[in-house]
Amino acid sequence: MAEHEVFSILRKKMREKGFDALVALSPDNVAYTAGFMVPSHLSNRFRRTVTVLAGDSYAAQIVVNVEENLARQESRFPAIRAYNQFTEEPGDLMADMFAEAGVAEGRIAIELEYMPAKDYIRLSERLPKARFEECRDIYFTARMEKTQEEIALLRKVGRLTDRVIGEAIGAVRPGMREKELARFMVDRMMEGGVDDLRMNVGSGARSAIANCKPTEKEMARGDVIRVEILGNLHNYKSNVTRTAVLGGPTEEQERIWASLIRIRGKCHEALKPGTSVPDLYRTFVEASRAEGLDPAIKFLGHGIGQTVHEEPYITETREVTLAPNMTLTMEPIFLFPGRMGFHVEDMYLITPEGHERITGLLTPNDEIIRIEA
Amino acid sequence: MAEHEVFSILRKKMREKGFDALVALSPDNVAYTAGFMVPSHLSNRFRRTVTVLAGDSYAAQIVVNVEENLARQESRFPAIRAYNQFTEEPGDLMADMFAEAGVAEGRIAIELEYMPAKDYIRLSERLPKARFEECRDIYFTARMEKTQEEIALLRKVGRLTDRVIGEAIGAVRPGMREKELARFMVDRMMEGGVDDLRMNVGSGARSAIANCKPTEKEMARGDVIRVEILGNLHNYKSNVTRTAVLGGPTEEQERIWASLIRIRGKCHEALKPGTSVPDLYRTFVEASRAEGLDPAIKFLGHGIGQTVHEEPYITETREVTLAPNMTLTMEPIFLFPGRMGFHVEDMYLITPEGHERITGLLTPNDEIIRIEA
Repeated sequence: MAEHEVFSILRKKMREKGFDALVALSPDNVAYTAGFMVPSHLSNRFRRTVTVLAGDSYAAQIVVNVEENLARQESRFPAIRAYNQFTEEPGDLMADMFAEAGVAEGRIAIELEYMPAKDYIRLSERLPKARFEECRDIYFTARMEKTQEEIALLRKVGRLTDRVIGEAIGAVRPGMREKELARFMVDRMMEGGVDDLRMNVGSGARSAIANCKPTEKEMARGDVIRVEILGNLHNYKSNVTRTAVLGGPTEEQERIWASLIRIRGKCHEALKPGTSVPDLYRTFVEASRAEGLDPAIKFLGHGIGQTVHEEPYITETREVTLAPNMTLTMEPIFLFPGRMGFHVEDMYLITPEGHERITGLLTPNDEIIRIEA
Repeated sequence: MAEHEVFSILRKKMREKGFDALVALSPDNVAYTAGFMVPSHLSNRFRRTVTVLAGDSYAAQIVVNVEENLARQESRFPAIRAYNQFTEEPGDLMADMFAEAGVAEGRIAIELEYMPAKDYIRLSERLPKARFEECRDIYFTARMEKTQEEIALLRKVGRLTDRVIGEAIGAVRPGMREKELARFMVDRMMEGGVDDLRMNVGSGARSAIANCKPTEKEMARGDVIRVEILGNLHNYKSNVTRTAVLGGPTEEQERIWASLIRIRGKCHEALKPGTSVPDLYRTFVEASRAEGLDPAIKFLGHGIGQTVHEEPYITETREVTLAPNMTLTMEPIFLFPGRMGFHVEDMYLITPEGHERITGLLTPNDEIIRIEA
């Protein structure tokens, strides 16, 4: 029986880099590899979930014993090794597997930036001849260009989010609490079928806080209202942000928004295959400076897929060139601490000709959104 | 100015064990120490958040730069060190801090089971004379006995959850989808003020899956329905589970439930100060065997506080004696794969006299819950 496409892609990249095994421990890389998310992987760090690909055919997954039944039903891995989190050491399980796969003295690509130091110390004791090296690039490059199935899911969750964020902003009235708005969004997103979601709601001076969790604060006339939704549908994520003014913007607010939209326009022009990510970031920074604005965060946006933040991060430090089937967000954000914040974020698909807006069609935002009050 | 109570508790435990510094990296230990949760700490593993206490007075927190404003407003730490996740190494930041605090050659208690191997490797290179040892016990024992403020929060989120789970089960009708029930619970929990929540809903044969995420499956007459809510109010967690039968139980189901309630009764008798946790676990296992039932998971319950699962885990492997102000759940669970699952979970506070039921008062469950259909 042929292996799953994802296994073939990963084995190929593993071999190209001269590795004998490829090991994932993080929820997103494990879910990408195994094809499903182990529920307790996200909530309990003492319950490890690990996938191991080695050589041409070795493929096994480690899960905590309470997840064994589900893993046998859902995982792409033919071999499931369940363990007792109270009496067994994940480092020992991995060492045994590497020995079984014949790579105990091999070069092992593993998530050094996720694997706990404890497991690393144990593995190094058990297999002193093995070499453990970071596997980040293998996973990031494999996951950066999406399959048609992945793109369909991202469109679905993106469009739902785009619609709901517009409905939510339309429901704001003076005196409504930030948490009530959050509740409205949660209900509509769940009605739309998401598995879960997170959100930010910041009104008035709170709109200047980068990640502003909703509070009991009442929204008042004159407040800038910054709303962000991060949805999750079958492990694929959405991320959309809008800024509105309750009662309509001041002249200063309109001026800043017009600058933001001009800055974003320059970035839209560069958002196409062949553009290097550092160039796209520099386009953003230079356009911001030309408008007299100072970006509040050190990136313009980020890849999006099974995680909200993945490669390509749009920063100066990434050596990535945009290519078709990459999916990412752009999120120009300008904060005026103690006063107000402006932020718009949409999801994009890189196409052979340029880009497609996955979101931004259902809630127009070329002008700052005005809520009647 | 006197330090916060939590700093004093942790410094005392650090000194008792002969450590020169105490370092937290996990969301729950950082939130316990700093008094607030850094939003992106939960969602982005490449953005480290670290707290450092050293000697008698050193106290500093590392956050990614996008969280700097919030940290300066919310953290108990007088010193905040913000860093750029794309150009700076968390291991270097920690090494610099340990040098600044004068403990570069000291014994450092740190979260080896959370700190990424990458940071450990970097720290070991930078500070070859430092010794890094697991700090798990310091945090676990500090967090196990709750303050009155913590108990009040756990009561609040527990009672809300207890009420909502009953209302949710009361709303089930044949043909309702598992996800619709989830949506109902989310809406009611958010109305009650929680910051977020997770839940499990498993109906019919799906009730036998340990962590059963809600799906589009329609609930049908005769289905066993297993519902679990995990709420989060100001970082304090609830965890309540109920089992019901749509249309009423069969004789077999009533018999199994009666066994479960007798088993739980034996555990209730042992739930008081002075009982050792392994003894409580053995009480559960022996009572289960006497009823001819085989527990589906290797623990009876778990401490609950800022994390859903914390110490004391009720297993044979824990050397903990129950004491007043500990908060925990008990969750006898019996699964019949492919057929049905039975599970009840409530939250308890250990009192000087015995225990108080934090939940279980608003949704009685001595008889299996019958949903009219």
